[in-house]
Amino acid sequence: MELKKDIENRLKIFFGKKIISARKISRLHAEAIKKIQNFTLNGGKRLRAIFTYYGYLAVGGKNKDAILNACIYNELLQSFLLVHDDIIDDDDLRRGKPSLHKEYQSENSKHFGISMAIIAGDIARELALEILLESKFPMERKIKALQFLHTNIEEVCAGEMLDIEASGCDEITKNFIQKIHYYKTATYTVAGPLCVGGILGGANEKTLHVFQDYAHFLGRAFQIQDDILGLFGDEKKLGKPVGSDLGENKKTLLILKALEKASQKEQNIIQNALGNKSLSPEQIQNVREIITRTGSLAYSQKSARALAKRAQQIIHDAQMVKEAKSFLENISDYIVNRNF
Amino acid sequence: MELKKDIENRLKIFFGKKIISARKISRLHAEAIKKIQNFTLNGGKRLRAIFTYYGYLAVGGKNKDAILNACIYNELLQSFLLVHDDIIDDDDLRRGKPSLHKEYQSENSKHFGISMAIIAGDIARELALEILLESKFPMERKIKALQFLHTNIEEVCAGEMLDIEASGCDEITKNFIQKIHYYKTATYTVAGPLCVGGILGGANEKTLHVFQDYAHFLGRAFQIQDDILGLFGDEKKLGKPVGSDLGENKKTLLILKALEKASQKEQNIIQNALGNKSLSPEQIQNVREIITRTGSLAYSQKSARALAKRAQQIIHDAQMVKEAKSFLENISDYIVNRNF
Repeated sequence: MELKKDIENRLKIFFGKKIISARKISRLHAEAIKKIQNFTLNGGKRLRAIFTYYGYLAVGGKNKDAILNACIYNELLQSFLLVHDDIIDDDDLRRGKPSLHKEYQSENSKHFGISMAIIAGDIARELALEILLESKFPMERKIKALQFLHTNIEEVCAGEMLDIEASGCDEITKNFIQKIHYYKTATYTVAGPLCVGGILGGANEKTLHVFQDYAHFLGRAFQIQDDILGLFGDEKKLGKPVGSDLGENKKTLLILKALEKASQKEQNIIQNALGNKSLSPEQIQNVREIITRTGSLAYSQKSARALAKRAQQIIHDAQMVKEAKSFLENISDYIVNRNF
Repeated sequence: MELKKDIENRLKIFFGKKIISARKISRLHAEAIKKIQNFTLNGGKRLRAIFTYYGYLAVGGKNKDAILNACIYNELLQSFLLVHDDIIDDDDLRRGKPSLHKEYQSENSKHFGISMAIIAGDIARELALEILLESKFPMERKIKALQFLHTNIEEVCAGEMLDIEASGCDEITKNFIQKIHYYKTATYTVAGPLCVGGILGGANEKTLHVFQDYAHFLGRAFQIQDDILGLFGDEKKLGKPVGSDLGENKKTLLILKALEKASQKEQNIIQNALGNKSLSPEQIQNVREIITRTGSLAYSQKSARALAKRAQQIIHDAQMVKEAKSFLENISDYIVNRNF
């Protein structure tokens, strides 16, 4: 996709400049920016940046060059969240490569790795906000976009806390999981980027509401598909071990639904897999079979498709620039049909 | 001090409102804000907020109510840095109370405590920036202040990385330590708050340079006094064990100077104390005696006073509103004579 490449090129240019100025501060700082660069450029769908781009176009924004330079803030923000997330989940891998704390660790102790990665994450967030502040849009729009973004980040942090709590609990309800998805995916992955783009393009309140409604349904569809891929996907494309959600005791809707319908014996198999960091391929295969047999897989796939359709309809009924409209409609299909 | 109380009252009002809105997101989020509130309100000199206040007044700013509401951003930013810093330094205490990761830990595992505290720190930073964004100043000044602040945060992060590296190294030069102080104290504690206040008041570039020059000298004085208090101060007033810098292998100028002049035997005593987390009162006393005997204590005190004098002179020679000028001159004396 050409847009994705363009975004990645702009990221490279941004990092190139940033590394030069970081060298004036210290070698360590330049090294940190370099590590953030590698982390950020190592894969990723650039979906959030693309949402910001089309959110801007949707409301009639004309300065494509400026929005392309601005929309990369999403990728830095995502790196900040992923770096801290990997520490929290104690994940050694991110998209097939060492997570940032793991990379720093190679030079020293585990605690050193975590310490440096906490700060590197903090720096990535600084960079994200700097990009928005420096962007070539009217000041009142930048201020409004930043206000929106700060609430957005606060909410994703709140979602992350819920997620940590959920990992430590045995009894989690569907509502609780949906709340996590709402903050961690719908709000952060879809609504935030779209609305920031919209605000930079001068969106009115009505359009921002349309974006948020759309995000609500699409975000849930996105998350369900993510959960399915986490257990049934291709390890190489995922860049992390299949079944790692089980090991992290993440109770997805897929698991919850299966538990509802499973026999006592099957329930035990799932419960034993949850939170077990050294699952065998057989154990994962057993869980997969239970999820399929109980109909939980089919149910999840159906739910994701229905949610994506509702999202599509919201955009279909709204007034916006055609190029953006087609994209937002089509991406709904992609999100539930993607295999990574 | 009345100003300090006023700042603390405004912090309480801010947190009160914030906790109510956080409840709409989740119980956990409201709890996090409450913990950040307690952490922020538990002591502290409010020096950074006060610098922002006087930076604003110095350039002729008239809206005292608006700057008092805005200047509290410093205290939230400080909480963000301290929370992450305590994780990095593995400190259980902050101003005599449990550090935030320790507090979260009491409910669960150590890793749980660290995870929650990483996010709580991230939230504190969001709040800091929100306060500035919402402040009642012209948009172009807010944008400029935020740009300045982002560079400032990036630099303090860079300083923190240098600090982590220094803790793991045996050979540290005076220049290296001064670089850490420059970023962690002069830039962050003095220049940042003063310049943000100045920018919000409409400062010109010349005044911002004066503030930065002043900060350069005062920050160094501040840090030397901090190092002295860390070893010779009153544990109760400090809120942390005397000598904890030694345990954390922090090579202060005080230590470096003493090592230069010490006998081989004395050098061994200091080297054995550095990085030792369970120092006996006798060991600490021995290090104190070496620092005194070698003249390092007197040298440090003299340096701090000389630096504070230079800072004072810079303000004395500059043109600014009288009330702010007196404050900035007087605070230099306070900084090298304070006992906490």
